[in-house]
Amino acid sequence: MNSAVIASLLAAVPGLMLKTDPADLEHYGRDWTRRWTPAPLAIAFPESAQQVQAIVRWARVEGVAIVPSGGRTGLSGGAVAAHGELVLSLERMAKVLGFDAVDRTLTVQAGTPLEAVHNAAREHELAYPVDFASRGSCSIGGTIATNAGGIRVIRYGNTREWIAGLKVVTGAGDLLELNRSLIKNSSGYDLRHLFIGSEGTLGIVVEATLRLTAPSAPTNVMLLALPSFEALMDVFAILRSHLALEAFEFFTDRALAHVLAHGAQAPFAEVHPYYVVAEFEAADEAQEAAALAAFEACAETGLVSDAVLSSSDAQAAQLWRLREGITESLAAFRPYKNDVSVRVSAMPAFLAEAQALLAAGYPGFEVVWFGHIGDGNLHINVLTPEGMGETEFVARCSEVTDTLADILQRHGGSISAEHGIGLVKKPWLESTRSAEEIAVMRGIRQVLDPSGIMNPGKLFDSRPAA
Amino acid sequence: MNSAVIASLLAAVPGLMLKTDPADLEHYGRDWTRRWTPAPLAIAFPESAQQVQAIVRWARVEGVAIVPSGGRTGLSGGAVAAHGELVLSLERMAKVLGFDAVDRTLTVQAGTPLEAVHNAAREHELAYPVDFASRGSCSIGGTIATNAGGIRVIRYGNTREWIAGLKVVTGAGDLLELNRSLIKNSSGYDLRHLFIGSEGTLGIVVEATLRLTAPSAPTNVMLLALPSFEALMDVFAILRSHLALEAFEFFTDRALAHVLAHGAQAPFAEVHPYYVVAEFEAADEAQEAAALAAFEACAETGLVSDAVLSSSDAQAAQLWRLREGITESLAAFRPYKNDVSVRVSAMPAFLAEAQALLAAGYPGFEVVWFGHIGDGNLHINVLTPEGMGETEFVARCSEVTDTLADILQRHGGSISAEHGIGLVKKPWLESTRSAEEIAVMRGIRQVLDPSGIMNPGKLFDSRPAA
Repeated sequence: MNSAVIASLLAAVPGLMLKTDPADLEHYGRDWTRRWTPAPLAIAFPESAQQVQAIVRWARVEGVAIVPSGGRTGLSGGAVAAHGELVLSLERMAKVLGFDAVDRTLTVQAGTPLEAVHNAAREHELAYPVDFASRGSCSIGGTIATNAGGIRVIRYGNTREWIAGLKVVTGAGDLLELNRSLIKNSSGYDLRHLFIGSEGTLGIVVEATLRLTAPSAPTNVMLLALPSFEALMDVFAILRSHLALEAFEFFTDRALAHVLAHGAQAPFAEVHPYYVVAEFEAADEAQEAAALAAFEACAETGLVSDAVLSSSDAQAAQLWRLREGITESLAAFRPYKNDVSVRVSAMPAFLAEAQALLAAGYPGFEVVWFGHIGDGNLHINVLTPEGMGETEFVARCSEVTDTLADILQRHGGSISAEHGIGLVKKPWLESTRSAEEIAVMRGIRQVLDPSGIMNPGKLFDSRPAA
Repeated sequence: MNSAVIASLLAAVPGLMLKTDPADLEHYGRDWTRRWTPAPLAIAFPESAQQVQAIVRWARVEGVAIVPSGGRTGLSGGAVAAHGELVLSLERMAKVLGFDAVDRTLTVQAGTPLEAVHNAAREHELAYPVDFASRGSCSIGGTIATNAGGIRVIRYGNTREWIAGLKVVTGAGDLLELNRSLIKNSSGYDLRHLFIGSEGTLGIVVEATLRLTAPSAPTNVMLLALPSFEALMDVFAILRSHLALEAFEFFTDRALAHVLAHGAQAPFAEVHPYYVVAEFEAADEAQEAAALAAFEACAETGLVSDAVLSSSDAQAAQLWRLREGITESLAAFRPYKNDVSVRVSAMPAFLAEAQALLAAGYPGFEVVWFGHIGDGNLHINVLTPEGMGETEFVARCSEVTDTLADILQRHGGSISAEHGIGLVKKPWLESTRSAEEIAVMRGIRQVLDPSGIMNPGKLFDSRPAA
């Protein structure tokens, strides 16, 4: 059966590279979530937009579902292929296609890793400012599919802000060139923004033209130890008013303990409940003086228990490692990940309720908090208790998420700040989007993917439940 | 007939204010274009989102078309009601609803004038940076419907960048609250961006939450006289690399002549082919020195024929008036307006072709150029020759636009940079959007406006021509 389907694909797309080895099916059939058993039909590695188009057109005729696949570093199951889908990997479409000095844009194929984009921009003394820890393995197409955020959103915004133009193949098999990389273009609906964050459910990003910016001025990094969550909000307000913040990331003592257990060096002699890594412009003496003044303002009011100001790039990198090492240090515990956001102004009230819920809902569980306070974005990782099976653990976490979603709903938040909905957050989409909105999204999906072959079952079901 | 329809509307929306006087029908039935004869059914002035919803639901049942109406300063006929439509004016929904200091957002009803938004932001020592000459009369809802650009795009981007959240009533009569003003929200398709720039064809913006920013540092303004268009591109490159540009606007000698005839004061003793108004940060001595250095670099290479650097706010305002007075000074000539854009890098090649076309296509016509070089956006106004009737003039201009659209298509540009498509640019939408894109837009319109009542005939026809 499968071999006939594959033969038909190869006939429809001559020269297409395919993999069907069990090891490949497993490797390419999942992302960084580990909850589903990979079971794709095959992995296709197109080399051009035209091949992608041919694959989609074939899939429509044959009724085969397609799972677009970048670096598969996603945390919501958006790239999982567990039901005989064809995985369409962009791995062999990873070229930098062009740079324009006047427009300050870089055009790349969708499979290009984020870090390769950073490097290509740097070669031209410019910067692509979207950044996060999986930069070496994630693909630019995947960052577009989830409107990836990361550690510099406070200064530079999300991926959405940096996409000048997109080439996409829709679920109907059409190749669309969206926005032509124009700065000003008021000529109908901006379909580019519709594709950004659509998690492969409307089509496949094959090429992107990215805006670049001047590299940031020299920066410095400080690590602060704080006594409470309330202090965190106050310190954020003080630093934001004194400094040009590039990043403001927090984590808890438990997060730090895991990173230290993973080999990092303890920054302070004592343990504190909360920590902040703040990066800020320090281009001249005035800015350095402002940093000291801000730090003193925090210390005087007792908001900060201890602090380090980096004195070298190496030390700055070491401080960053304490924050960036968290996800990796938790991986072995198969954490249940919450990635929620509220307006920054709603954070204190939301947190009070969420902390109470999680303490009550997870007695004895280890809950690790970290995230991007300046963007209203919290990551709440619940670690699997020793000896608890995955099914029981996920069921238990899902119950708590039901209540967390209610709290988010009440505070006007989102069940997914930057990871996407995928499979993991799908049961709670309605906490963030109204029934009317979901009906509109369903209608739009039908327009762009009339045969329902694009990443089916992800984000929301194409047809409402009967 | 009409009175029965109006009675049914009043029954469906108790307390709704309506106007049907001939003078009102004429006033509210048109925008700043003057090509169509206003002929609306009536003007409705709802006072709440709920009333807007009730009107839309009534209109669906009765099959009455709705034209959303803000300040009607549009230049593409997007707010024209010439076929018995109900004009839905947001004039009585013009309140500032809230300000949040932590989120730095301002929530306003859609009818709020742009200038009132500026003033409200200023009260909180913040700024809403989208700005253009019709600020006193345009409504914020209208700026969202066209993704308005204006004179600060080079620094702050278009309206799209400043919309944290939107409340809209769709053509189906649903009230959607889009994005909840979150900074990070990856929970499905971003319908907010779909509505921005949709020109009232998907629904009606009733409320917006706007991001504010710190007011710009003190600025200075220079006026430069230039010998050629080529010099303009070079001067832009030099100034951009030396200065923090807030605006870089050009106009031609003909544009200046009209503004002077309208009462402005001549800035230079001699006449020059091109002028630039550049505004840039001048917060400290270093920035002022950079401005002088940039100016000297231009002068040395012979790029600049003459120049003025403003020495007071009053003088800066006077220099700006030379650019901002253009549209008003041309109004009496009923200009045919082109508002085109290309990538900045494509500008020289596009211009060479466009200038040759316009010289050949409009022998003896007066053609006035101005615009936003830094955004790749040119305004090309063709003035009605004395004694030529409107029909003949528009027919003649349309012929030239056919060729201009071909040139734009070849250079990857847009037939509408910031005015929108409306009625005026509709015949040339296909120069900017492919047939496949238009088919997708048509499908999306059908999802959000299933009865085809939202601003029908604008942007594109809801059904393809038979």
